[in-house]
Amino acid sequence: MTRRASEPVNGRRRSTIREVAERAGVSVATVSRILSGDYPASPATRKRVMRAVEELDYVANAHARALAGTSAKSIAIVLNSVISPHYAHVAQGVEAQTAVEGRLCLIGTTGGDAERELAMVKFMREQHAEAVILVGNVVADEKYGKRMSQYAHALTAIGSRLVLCGRPPLGPDVPAVVVEYDNAGGAFAATSHLLSAGHERILCLGRRPGHTTQDGRVAGYRKALAAHRVPHDPALEVEGTTMEWHEGYRMMKERLATGPRDFTAVFALNDLIAGGAYRALAEHGLRVPDDVSMVGFDDLQPSLDLNLTSVHLPHEEIGRTAVRLALEHEARGGTPPHVILGTHLVIRDSVRPRVS
Amino acid sequence: MTRRASEPVNGRRRSTIREVAERAGVSVATVSRILSGDYPASPATRKRVMRAVEELDYVANAHARALAGTSAKSIAIVLNSVISPHYAHVAQGVEAQTAVEGRLCLIGTTGGDAERELAMVKFMREQHAEAVILVGNVVADEKYGKRMSQYAHALTAIGSRLVLCGRPPLGPDVPAVVVEYDNAGGAFAATSHLLSAGHERILCLGRRPGHTTQDGRVAGYRKALAAHRVPHDPALEVEGTTMEWHEGYRMMKERLATGPRDFTAVFALNDLIAGGAYRALAEHGLRVPDDVSMVGFDDLQPSLDLNLTSVHLPHEEIGRTAVRLALEHEARGGTPPHVILGTHLVIRDSVRPRVS
Repeated sequence: MTRRASEPVNGRRRSTIREVAERAGVSVATVSRILSGDYPASPATRKRVMRAVEELDYVANAHARALAGTSAKSIAIVLNSVISPHYAHVAQGVEAQTAVEGRLCLIGTTGGDAERELAMVKFMREQHAEAVILVGNVVADEKYGKRMSQYAHALTAIGSRLVLCGRPPLGPDVPAVVVEYDNAGGAFAATSHLLSAGHERILCLGRRPGHTTQDGRVAGYRKALAAHRVPHDPALEVEGTTMEWHEGYRMMKERLATGPRDFTAVFALNDLIAGGAYRALAEHGLRVPDDVSMVGFDDLQPSLDLNLTSVHLPHEEIGRTAVRLALEHEARGGTPPHVILGTHLVIRDSVRPRVS
Repeated sequence: MTRRASEPVNGRRRSTIREVAERAGVSVATVSRILSGDYPASPATRKRVMRAVEELDYVANAHARALAGTSAKSIAIVLNSVISPHYAHVAQGVEAQTAVEGRLCLIGTTGGDAERELAMVKFMREQHAEAVILVGNVVADEKYGKRMSQYAHALTAIGSRLVLCGRPPLGPDVPAVVVEYDNAGGAFAATSHLLSAGHERILCLGRRPGHTTQDGRVAGYRKALAAHRVPHDPALEVEGTTMEWHEGYRMMKERLATGPRDFTAVFALNDLIAGGAYRALAEHGLRVPDDVSMVGFDDLQPSLDLNLTSVHLPHEEIGRTAVRLALEHEARGGTPPHVILGTHLVIRDSVRPRVS
């Protein structure tokens, strides 16, 4: 520890923990205990040590670095934001499984910014995270693929690994563990549920071409229409800019303002959009499910408050699986696993048979 | 870098990046670039370098450590869970401000477990986080105070600092920045709003003696009753075990099962409890606000879906303020600041004048 502490840093020689101990008139162990903060110490002793620390300008980082050897193993999850309940629940699953595995879970957010994502992955790599889990919806263009490929190789090089969660795989030459869930299958079930209730004019709220999550859900919507031999009307697919409450409200408000209602049911691409649409309908005197049937996607908090039938995504299971697969892959090596988790419909009270 | 890489680790001599470069027949810079993953490299070159890395069992952590010097500064936020929208929004505020300040934001969760909290704070300290922000509701007993005091001193010792967010201060001898919000004031406003509408039998849902957040809100509820000269009936204060939707549902279900309804309005200690109570009321044919008036606390997602009048907590502002104060204190030193942020009522459509 002393040798490390005395490494020159930007030319300036660092004072050592031993010097701090001597000046404070206590043992190195006592200084160490007080600085680590893990053990109580008499206020008087603490004061003496702290004064010595200040007088010697002792950079206790050296001490922290010395502790670092005993530092807990960690697994990192990097996401756009934690205020999306979807991401938060996945992170919760990662957190729960890392605890089971005796690791710490570090969460980093990027605000959807590629530069900050790079900085965060680099940082997590420097912290020697055993795995870095990237979560959620992306525009899977070439630039994205290149970035992920760099992450994957950089992490592999230090014996860590990249895990893509709710994102499509990157191809055979990119060593990344992939955990997806079945967006298309869930949307197929949601749309079929409405079709089976006799609805044929089903508004699809929130498409966003190029975004992997929405594209999968829209594909399932179209597949269900085809399976039930109901003609696909592109005019029923409403494009959104985000997947948030206010955007759902805006889309439905504008739809209802453009003339007579041309739909009897709504498939919202997530529960937040459903909530906003629900409010816009209410402001037009339209009740769910009496006047309009609705199905959402995610089965998170809003579906409880709205009593909304929704597609259940196994959010926390996705997170747990990501951690399990990453650690298995660490132990066994070989080709990184690729898993697709299923979804199912949770029936509440937001759908009625169509009255023709 | 080479010197570091060749430091013996548990007795075993490490191979160096130079040796990797020689074996791969490329420059050290190229190995460095490929391992850092920041720059593209031809697949062939990458393959050669990776093979050399494997053959030499080169522990690139040494390389990562070498990079660590250029690592971004970081600020850490430690919370029980990210699935609580309250915590998630505070974390979002911290994230937003750290981005503004050119730092990375690390989020750690503890599941409310003291052991994991200690491990997390220690870990964040080892990562040299400039500040460690602890968020949210606690049982402020002596053990808690001791733990926080240890954190504060351990962080101060390395030039970092502890920030308590939505928690009471710890006393003058504990060097912690404190950012609180006015729970009692918000509850006073919420209850007064119901009292002004003529309601006197106001059910208070979710008290939890000993928990700082709930205690503050219950105190505000009682203060408002007193200010309006409405007798305080302890039987109207319902005790809960958590602040979640299902607990709100349970409390209201049980209340309605125990006999004739003895309240005309509900003050829910947060929006999640309000949502569960709302559902339980609906199942008994009671509508909000026509039959029962309700006010919540937090002004988060559920208040939108429920169209619920709620006390707005400046969640993201709390997070931003925590970061600002921590960095100001880092720059200026002196006594750690203690700030209390205000709240205000957001009126939606969940309160009606009492029909007597």
